[in-house]
Amino acid sequence: MIEHVRVVITTPLEEELVSTVAGIDDRLDVVYPADLMAATRYPSDHPFPPLDAPGSAERWESLLDEAEILFDFGPLDLAPTLARRPKLRWIQATSAGVGRFAERIGLLDSDVVVTTASGVHARPLAEFAMLAMLLFGKDTLRLQREQQERHWERHAGEEIRGKVVCVVGLGKIGREVARLAHAFDARVTGVVRETRGRSARELGVDVLGTPDDLDALLADADVVVLATPHTGDTHRLLDARRIALLKPTAIVVNIARGDVVDEPALADALAAGRLRGAALDVFQEEPLPAESPLWGLPNVLVSPHSASTVAAENERIVELFGENLRRYLAGTPLLNVLDKGLLY
Amino acid sequence: MIEHVRVVITTPLEEELVSTVAGIDDRLDVVYPADLMAATRYPSDHPFPPLDAPGSAERWESLLDEAEILFDFGPLDLAPTLARRPKLRWIQATSAGVGRFAERIGLLDSDVVVTTASGVHARPLAEFAMLAMLLFGKDTLRLQREQQERHWERHAGEEIRGKVVCVVGLGKIGREVARLAHAFDARVTGVVRETRGRSARELGVDVLGTPDDLDALLADADVVVLATPHTGDTHRLLDARRIALLKPTAIVVNIARGDVVDEPALADALAAGRLRGAALDVFQEEPLPAESPLWGLPNVLVSPHSASTVAAENERIVELFGENLRRYLAGTPLLNVLDKGLLY
Repeated sequence: MIEHVRVVITTPLEEELVSTVAGIDDRLDVVYPADLMAATRYPSDHPFPPLDAPGSAERWESLLDEAEILFDFGPLDLAPTLARRPKLRWIQATSAGVGRFAERIGLLDSDVVVTTASGVHARPLAEFAMLAMLLFGKDTLRLQREQQERHWERHAGEEIRGKVVCVVGLGKIGREVARLAHAFDARVTGVVRETRGRSARELGVDVLGTPDDLDALLADADVVVLATPHTGDTHRLLDARRIALLKPTAIVVNIARGDVVDEPALADALAAGRLRGAALDVFQEEPLPAESPLWGLPNVLVSPHSASTVAAENERIVELFGENLRRYLAGTPLLNVLDKGLLY
Repeated sequence: MIEHVRVVITTPLEEELVSTVAGIDDRLDVVYPADLMAATRYPSDHPFPPLDAPGSAERWESLLDEAEILFDFGPLDLAPTLARRPKLRWIQATSAGVGRFAERIGLLDSDVVVTTASGVHARPLAEFAMLAMLLFGKDTLRLQREQQERHWERHAGEEIRGKVVCVVGLGKIGREVARLAHAFDARVTGVVRETRGRSARELGVDVLGTPDDLDALLADADVVVLATPHTGDTHRLLDARRIALLKPTAIVVNIARGDVVDEPALADALAAGRLRGAALDVFQEEPLPAESPLWGLPNVLVSPHSASTVAAENERIVELFGENLRRYLAGTPLLNVLDKGLLY
């Protein structure tokens, strides 16, 4: 029987939300070292705590020595010290795509459970995809240039209705894109790693394919939305060869990870007008280097990895964390457990 | 019994669509004077035919002398000649908001029936409203300025979920805005001239009000979508006093008519930051004069009265016209008849 559980919150969190976590169960002993946190740059920002103040690294060391549960990964290199931190059992992440990060910091070989924030960002990311479809469909970037020149030129736009939207990856984000695209009467095709007996209908798409179908589905798409985790299988999935398969009128939306795309090849295709446009929230290197050609392309919307971030995000993550804490204390399976083989 | 009906198409139309109209019934005698048409600037453009070529005015005169039905109003001043054109019975317009135009050309006092293209533009206009909500909700205009400066600055955006969207005018356009906003989980309030026993639910909104409720509903709104016809009642409906009622974070979308708003007052509020932003497809004077401050405001999207125009528009208008022709020949009520009292 669990009597006492030390939870350490390692990322900036609103006072009320810290209280919410602490109030979930009497057995929780919640530590929030406010003075160690980095300043937030925007609501629900999750910066790593700085380690340069005198004594801060030592304080984090001792906080983590006593922790059984972490909310966010914290500033320390965890992997090498896991052996002397047998108490640490579970880390609740504040983002969804943490597989590669968990791998990099050596958590995959440990017994520490990682739960992701999968689902929390599905709506804002799906909204970003819809924004991209409407923005390019209505030629808004050109409109804005004409506005700067005070030039009135009527034109005919497009509707989403009847467009083929290919969603690569049908996790919570991809399924939410499919749902919203359907509200606009798009035809949605979806690609999953394995159908595992699931039907297109179950996953909310009109046509369901596996990686074997990807080339054909890409060639047929008016909009390609990348919403897949970054794994060995999806690394450079949209490479130069596949970019060449796309229609010249196609739009690419990347809300996955920069490494899912061959970025230079994508930039070349966009610069050459071999694609209509791209809305990119993620990049191979972030912040996107100043010398990247993507910044200057008139048919590209660069979003600074913020499409997933909404002011209300912390509230939703704490809701998820709270549910998981209740499950943890009850000994029932946690939600959103990172599959250390699949990396999502 | 109708034996022979002369239909004159007075606006550019694709050859196949002219054939579609002609093929609807053997009794139709469809005239399409292709050589008299103005060049189209974009798909489904409906420019007035030019009258400056030698003989063109005379040719239009004689074409209209024989017409029983017109597709679009044509280039001539109809009203003064209606007395000597008793054959003319019905004009199918190619746009929805033609009440004021019909008034200006003197059709309100005649027996000529005018049917509007109401419904054809509902989807693209509703999409424009959704584009506006997403664009401002995600601070995209600022993002684009930062992109030009190659400046990476993470930020927290907003979701449409939970926002209060006030739709003024619940015709086909307004109801389509409500439907799409609901797909994003907005709370939708709606204003109609008279409820006429209709419920909020029937009209697809969460709260239904009449002009008496307008001030309160505006004050409560995060987004105001103007989708009302321009009539005596709606002239300058969003005036300086009502603009002052809006939240400083509110967004105004005008897909109605420029005269529904006090444009200088709106520009002032936007310039002073008393509103978050505006997406405007219609203006008091069109084309928007070069000296209008709206062009230069960083929180305004100027659209050149093209949000309703999609490439597939002519197809849909012809579909509607075809249905109306069948009804006309069968002697059953036409769809979309302009109410000459209400002006819509």
